[in-house]
Amino acid sequence: MDLHAATRYSLVMTIPAAILSIGDELVSGVSVDTNSAWLAAQLAAVGIGATFHVTVGDDLAHIVEAIQQVVHAQATKDPAFPCNGGILLITGGLGPTEDDLTRQALADAMGEQLVEDPTGLSQIESWFKKVSRPMAASNRLQALRPQSAGILENTNGTAPGLRARFEQTEIFVMPGVPREMKEMYTRAILPALRERLAQHAGDTPAQVRHVIKINTFGTGESVIGEKIKDLMVRGGYETKGAHVSVGTTAADGIVSVRVYASGTVEATREAIDTVRAEVSGRLGPIIYGEGEETLEAAVGALLKHQKATIATAESCTGGMIAEMLTNIAGSSEYFLRGWVTYANESKQQELGVPAEMLAACGAVSEQVAGAMAEGARQHAGTQWAVSTTGIAGPGGGSEEKPVGTVWIAVTDGRETIARRFIFPGNRQQVRQRAAQMALALLRWRLMGILAPV
Amino acid sequence: MDLHAATRYSLVMTIPAAILSIGDELVSGVSVDTNSAWLAAQLAAVGIGATFHVTVGDDLAHIVEAIQQVVHAQATKDPAFPCNGGILLITGGLGPTEDDLTRQALADAMGEQLVEDPTGLSQIESWFKKVSRPMAASNRLQALRPQSAGILENTNGTAPGLRARFEQTEIFVMPGVPREMKEMYTRAILPALRERLAQHAGDTPAQVRHVIKINTFGTGESVIGEKIKDLMVRGGYETKGAHVSVGTTAADGIVSVRVYASGTVEATREAIDTVRAEVSGRLGPIIYGEGEETLEAAVGALLKHQKATIATAESCTGGMIAEMLTNIAGSSEYFLRGWVTYANESKQQELGVPAEMLAACGAVSEQVAGAMAEGARQHAGTQWAVSTTGIAGPGGGSEEKPVGTVWIAVTDGRETIARRFIFPGNRQQVRQRAAQMALALLRWRLMGILAPV
Repeated sequence: MDLHAATRYSLVMTIPAAILSIGDELVSGVSVDTNSAWLAAQLAAVGIGATFHVTVGDDLAHIVEAIQQVVHAQATKDPAFPCNGGILLITGGLGPTEDDLTRQALADAMGEQLVEDPTGLSQIESWFKKVSRPMAASNRLQALRPQSAGILENTNGTAPGLRARFEQTEIFVMPGVPREMKEMYTRAILPALRERLAQHAGDTPAQVRHVIKINTFGTGESVIGEKIKDLMVRGGYETKGAHVSVGTTAADGIVSVRVYASGTVEATREAIDTVRAEVSGRLGPIIYGEGEETLEAAVGALLKHQKATIATAESCTGGMIAEMLTNIAGSSEYFLRGWVTYANESKQQELGVPAEMLAACGAVSEQVAGAMAEGARQHAGTQWAVSTTGIAGPGGGSEEKPVGTVWIAVTDGRETIARRFIFPGNRQQVRQRAAQMALALLRWRLMGILAPV
Repeated sequence: MDLHAATRYSLVMTIPAAILSIGDELVSGVSVDTNSAWLAAQLAAVGIGATFHVTVGDDLAHIVEAIQQVVHAQATKDPAFPCNGGILLITGGLGPTEDDLTRQALADAMGEQLVEDPTGLSQIESWFKKVSRPMAASNRLQALRPQSAGILENTNGTAPGLRARFEQTEIFVMPGVPREMKEMYTRAILPALRERLAQHAGDTPAQVRHVIKINTFGTGESVIGEKIKDLMVRGGYETKGAHVSVGTTAADGIVSVRVYASGTVEATREAIDTVRAEVSGRLGPIIYGEGEETLEAAVGALLKHQKATIATAESCTGGMIAEMLTNIAGSSEYFLRGWVTYANESKQQELGVPAEMLAACGAVSEQVAGAMAEGARQHAGTQWAVSTTGIAGPGGGSEEKPVGTVWIAVTDGRETIARRFIFPGNRQQVRQRAAQMALALLRWRLMGILAPV
C-alpha cells in the first residue's frame, strides 16, 4: 500500500510562508517543537512551502523582532509577487499568565493598541461555563487583540487565536497546546488559506511545487551522490519546462533522494516522472519505496504477492527482524515463526546447528549463519528463512572478527547464500543495520536478482 | 503540566546563544528537528541560555542570511558585554552532496574563500579506512573550510565540523546526523564552551541550573500529577535556598517527572536530593530509573545482579521484548533464548502449548499466555520466562476481545502469573505498551513486590 501516492503530487504555490514558535520551554530545549513540523507539513499538503521556522522565548523584544523580520523579509524577497505578500503562522504565548506575551508583541510590532474583543470575551466565558469551572480574572486578558486584528475561536481551550494583516503579510496566531493548535488550524485557518490559494490561482500562472522522496537501502549517501551528481546541481535546473532540484538525506541507514519540481501542474508532473525514471535507472534495486514506505512493508508485499512464508533465526539482531516484519498489519499471512538463539546451546537445540560446526567455525561464521537459516526454514516449514549472527559490541570483537562483523544468510531451501558485513556504529546501530540488510538481501532474493551491493 | 514555570527561572549567563538548523526535510516538516532542543538543553546544563532557534532549508541565500542576522544581532544587542560576543551552533548541511551548502554559506557569510584542510582530509581518509569502504571523490569536499576557520574531528562519520570566529560571534558547525552531532558537541565543543564560561565566570556570581528526569512506567500522567500536585506549583517555589520547579512529560508510554533547581551549586544539589526523595516516596516502584535509563536496562541490571536467566515467548509483540532485552550490552549473560510464535502451530511445536487449550480458550487467553511462558522456561532451561499473546490490530478484534487486548504472563517455575490488559492506540503502540508492560511486570516480580498497578 502506498499511503503517499495520494499526496505525492502535493502542489506548492509560490506564497512565501514562515512559522514562528514562542515559548521558553522550546527555546531552552525542555520540549521539542513538534508544532512547526506539523504546520509545515499541513502547509505543504495544500501547496504552500514554509521557507523558515523561528523559535523564540517568552521575551517581548525577541517576539516583536521576529515578527518584524519575517514581515520585512516577505515584503521584499518576492518581487515577482508584490501583491501577494506572505503568510506567518505563530504558535504559543496566548495563555492567561504573565509570561504569555504574544498578543502584546503582535500589537507592538504592528504599532497598534490592544483592545478587548467582545465576541472573544463571550467565547471565553462560554468555554468556562461548558467545562463548569470558574473563570479567573486573568483569562479576560485573553480576549485582547491588536485594534485591526480579528479573533479565531478556540473550541478546545480558553485562548482565542488571532488573524491580522501586517503590511503584505497575513498573520495567524494559534495557541501552543498541540490539540488546540491543530483544531484551530484545521477549522479556522485552513479554509482561509484555501481561499487565498484560489484567488492566487486566478492572478498568476498556476505555479505549483511537487516533491517526492525515493527511499533506498544498501549503499552510502556519497555513492548515491556520485551516481546522480549531475542531477544534484546547486540551485537546480530547468527540465520539461519546470525547475527541478534533487537532494539526498540519510537517516537510520536509509538514504532518501528528494526530487522537488516547480512550474505549471503539467510541467512539474512531467519533470518529476522524468527525474524519477532517471533516478530509478541509475540506482536500480536499492530503491525499495517512496514516501513513508518501509523496507519491511516492501518485503511483506513481495511475500504476500508470492504467497510465500518466512521464518527468522536471529542472534545479534535479537528479535529485531521479526519485530520489523510483524509490525506490518496482516503479517501473520507470511510470518510464521522466529527464534532468538542467543546462546550456542539454543542454536543447536532449536535450529539443529551442529556442535562441531560451532566449535570449528565459531558462532559468527558463514557456516553457522547458513545452518541457522536452513534449520529455521525446516523447523518452521516455510519457503524462506533469514538468519543473523554477529558481534554487536561493544565487547566481543577480535582482530579477525571486529565489532560490527555480522554474517547474514538467506535460504529458500535450494540455495543458501550467506554474506559477511562489517557495520559501523554502536551496538544499536550495528543491530539495526544488520536487520535492515537482512531484509534487503531477502527482498533482492524474492525479486530474483543478484544483490546489487 | 506547566513547562513555562519550569524554565522561567533558568539562570542564563550573559553569553547570548543561537541555534541554526539546516535542511529541507526540517523546514518542510518532513522531519521534526530534535537537534535544536538537545543542544539548547546542553547549553542550559552549563548555564548558557539559547535565545532563539532558526530553521532554514538547503538554500544558500537563506543560510547566509540566517548566519549574518544572528551575528549582527549578537554584535549589537548586548552593549553591556561588548567584548564577549555570542555563540552560534549550526547543525546540518555538511554532507558530501550538492545540496550540502553549509560550508559554502559560512564562507560566503564571512566573505572568505573555502580552502582544503589537510588534517580534515586525512581524518576523512582514515574514517573510510576504518570502515573498509572506498572514499568517493565527493567526500573530499567535506575537508573544505573557510580560510580563517578550524575543523572539528568527526569520530562517527565523514563530515568534520567547523569552528570559526565571525565578528564577535563564535560559530560551531556540526553534522545534522544526531549521533555525530552529539558526539562532536560533547567531545569538541563543550570543553571550548566551558573554557569560555570560566573566563566569563569572573564577572558573575556562580549561579547554576540543574535538572533531573525521573522515569516511570505503569500509570498515567494525570495519576502521577495528582500524587505530586503540591510539588508542581505554577511558578515553582523556594526550598533549601534554591528555586525549584517540577513538571511531568509523557512520551511513548513513559511518564517522566522533571525537577529543576536553580541557585548556587550546593543549594541546587541539596534541593534536587530533597525533591527526588519526596517524589520517590510518593511514586514508589513505578520509578525505574533516571535520565536516559531504560526499562530494559533496569530489568537487565536486576537479572545480572541475581545471576538469573530469562527466556521470551512472544506472539503479538513479535520479538520486541527480546529485541529490547538484547539491546543492552552484556545481555548474553542473562538472555538465553526467545521465540516468536506467531502461528498456532508454532505455539504447540515450540512451546508445547496443548492444541486442546488453543481450541478451547483461544490463542489470546490467560491459559495460553501461561503455557507459553512455562513452555519457554522449560525449553530454554532458564529461571524466568515472560510471554505475550494479544490482538495488536487493526483487524482481529471482537466484542469479547477487542483490539488492544493482550495477556502477559511471567513465570519463575513456581508461580505463573498472567494478567490481561487492553492497551489503547494503533498497532505499533499496542505492541510497544505490551512489551514495556511485560518488562515492568518482570521487574516487579524480580524485586519481589506485588505489581503496583
